[in-house]
Amino acid sequence: MKFSGKVEKCGLSPMRKFHPYAVAAEAKGRNIYHLNIGQPDIETPKAYFDAVRHFELPVLAYAPSPGMPVLIDAIQKYYDKLNMHFEKSEILITNGGSEALQIVLQCILDDGDEILIPEPFYPNYNTMVLTCGAVIHPIPTSPEEGYHYADRQKIEREINEHTRAIMCTNPGNPTGSVLTPEEMRMMVDVAKAHDLFIIGDEAYREFVYAGEPLQSLGEFADAAENVVVIDTVSKRFSACGARVGCLITRNKELLAQAMKYCQARLSVATLDQVASAALYDVGPEYFAAVRDEYKRRRDTVVKKLQEIPGVICKCPKGAFYIMAALPVDNADTFQKWLLEEFEDKGDTVMFAPGEPFYATPGKGRNEVRIAYVLKQADLERAMELLALGIKKYNETH
Amino acid sequence: MKFSGKVEKCGLSPMRKFHPYAVAAEAKGRNIYHLNIGQPDIETPKAYFDAVRHFELPVLAYAPSPGMPVLIDAIQKYYDKLNMHFEKSEILITNGGSEALQIVLQCILDDGDEILIPEPFYPNYNTMVLTCGAVIHPIPTSPEEGYHYADRQKIEREINEHTRAIMCTNPGNPTGSVLTPEEMRMMVDVAKAHDLFIIGDEAYREFVYAGEPLQSLGEFADAAENVVVIDTVSKRFSACGARVGCLITRNKELLAQAMKYCQARLSVATLDQVASAALYDVGPEYFAAVRDEYKRRRDTVVKKLQEIPGVICKCPKGAFYIMAALPVDNADTFQKWLLEEFEDKGDTVMFAPGEPFYATPGKGRNEVRIAYVLKQADLERAMELLALGIKKYNETH
Repeated sequence: MKFSGKVEKCGLSPMRKFHPYAVAAEAKGRNIYHLNIGQPDIETPKAYFDAVRHFELPVLAYAPSPGMPVLIDAIQKYYDKLNMHFEKSEILITNGGSEALQIVLQCILDDGDEILIPEPFYPNYNTMVLTCGAVIHPIPTSPEEGYHYADRQKIEREINEHTRAIMCTNPGNPTGSVLTPEEMRMMVDVAKAHDLFIIGDEAYREFVYAGEPLQSLGEFADAAENVVVIDTVSKRFSACGARVGCLITRNKELLAQAMKYCQARLSVATLDQVASAALYDVGPEYFAAVRDEYKRRRDTVVKKLQEIPGVICKCPKGAFYIMAALPVDNADTFQKWLLEEFEDKGDTVMFAPGEPFYATPGKGRNEVRIAYVLKQADLERAMELLALGIKKYNETH
Repeated sequence: MKFSGKVEKCGLSPMRKFHPYAVAAEAKGRNIYHLNIGQPDIETPKAYFDAVRHFELPVLAYAPSPGMPVLIDAIQKYYDKLNMHFEKSEILITNGGSEALQIVLQCILDDGDEILIPEPFYPNYNTMVLTCGAVIHPIPTSPEEGYHYADRQKIEREINEHTRAIMCTNPGNPTGSVLTPEEMRMMVDVAKAHDLFIIGDEAYREFVYAGEPLQSLGEFADAAENVVVIDTVSKRFSACGARVGCLITRNKELLAQAMKYCQARLSVATLDQVASAALYDVGPEYFAAVRDEYKRRRDTVVKKLQEIPGVICKCPKGAFYIMAALPVDNADTFQKWLLEEFEDKGDTVMFAPGEPFYATPGKGRNEVRIAYVLKQADLERAMELLALGIKKYNETH
């Protein structure tokens, strides 16, 4: 049977690629410290489960295609508090930030189009873009420069007649980089100057560690036609399993096109929308505590990483990821070896090898993404295992 | 800004098109009988809400991309009881049947490809197919023949070098038609002979009213490479708002391609999967009661419809829809008139005009889809309003 040429170009998730090796290692009795996936261990606010328990309607009916009013209201108020005003009709509820991304990309990308994305980037962007018949055109960065990409010349150099949009994850996954207000302004200006969409995947908005106020591309009301904001409750409230996100834009035509997709898939899960609305009542003390916890974790991991000879790693300012270059020939081979041959007192460690985070062939081969989603003591032990592993691996390879 | 040529070809849902007119009519104090959408009024089994209330994990985490084992197990057992065996790896959990359809179509359709679908068909198929760059090639039917499409010659006549798949909703939406076992065998044979996928959207499997055993394309294990079954808890358990469905196939390559999409959107909502698994413990007495209720409703609507002079309507055998040709010039104009000008004791009625259910231009113009999802007495009143409306409309047009 013949398959779509578009889907054939896509690959599986690099975060899940080593799952079979992990299962085999665990079968041998190994204890694995998982730094490979962005699943936080922070408790979901009780408000979510309370709302679900109090749902009393006898029929679990379809929600409206653009989302339930109670949730749209809650999100509108959340943005109002951040001094960004959106009309209710400018907020479309989606199955997580992932579906919001899929919808906006399907609406704006045609066969042969290009979208500019700084690399390294979240690997699922590849599947989302390739299935539109388009390709990711990377904005190059380097570990030595802390993966900095917000440079006007650097970006404009990559724009051509096929470019339709610029997309960035801010705060960054996998790099943890955070744009300054001036850099955001510049990116928006570039988009306006070249008549491009600028898509901000802002799933990690609350996760910034230098005391800076929460920022968003949504602030640039002068670029109403260009700006698209992708948001989600997944990381903000440690509610990844809710699959509730949203697509926000002031571009009326984009909203009209996106509605076609929203209607074709009918609606987002009803209970999860009701419960997600309740999450928005969580107070600022919740975020302050979560932020403190992640900051401590980041500091631990960065300190330990920088102590390992040959590791290149600048301290990231946000999200809960660190991208680092390791002194190994190939992070993929190294990860496989860590699961198949290495152990220290029965323990080993898992991260996400860096190559699939790049569009440029060969780049990222000695890099890894580390998700610091474990408790303090576990992170320390995991970094110890990484240091030991690098030493042993290089002795035997 | 430029948009994707594919999304520009799509339209909005015809079921939701008259929503603004309905809002205006209600503002004038009109009471509307809604027969336009397939939202059942049957209560969702308590098991769903009980499972949700008993969820005790502190973190609402991502579910595995292919689905949660507890739900996959429940679905596997449900099929085993129907004498169809699928491996767990052959069942992928999706965001409703809608996402299962989107995934399979994205996997198999390329630009310029065609998919054969009997018309009238579920209008969202249009968006799903057009966004793949493909088109629906209709298998023609007529109201006079009860929308019968399962005729080998009729189907083979439409197959050409661009055809990639045959898709049917069985029991049918919007027609309520049900394939006989012999017809299903024939359709599968056609797919095998022409090396095509055959996709069965079987959302309404339980809704058959002549005492026949539940049937599925999944029974044809000899066509393992060809058959894809789309399933959902939406209608089976009146749980449309759960957004839990599945894609089932024995075709290993299709499963591998589909997994790329599943991973790119991460997972389906966790709580809804746990709760949907609990639904599968509901006993056969639940289905028997629901089936009896819908059968009574169908009989009421058909009897009333056939009493209206000039209506063409054969009694459908399944689902909860009836497609009928009305003695009006244009069902769209008629619907608008019913909402804007007609009333009887303050009441009016809404259905889905037929044209958007067709791919052939001009077809279905005097047809409507009626969803019999209201209580007996309300259905009788709704049919009375339809009869009165037709009479008055034709006197004034």
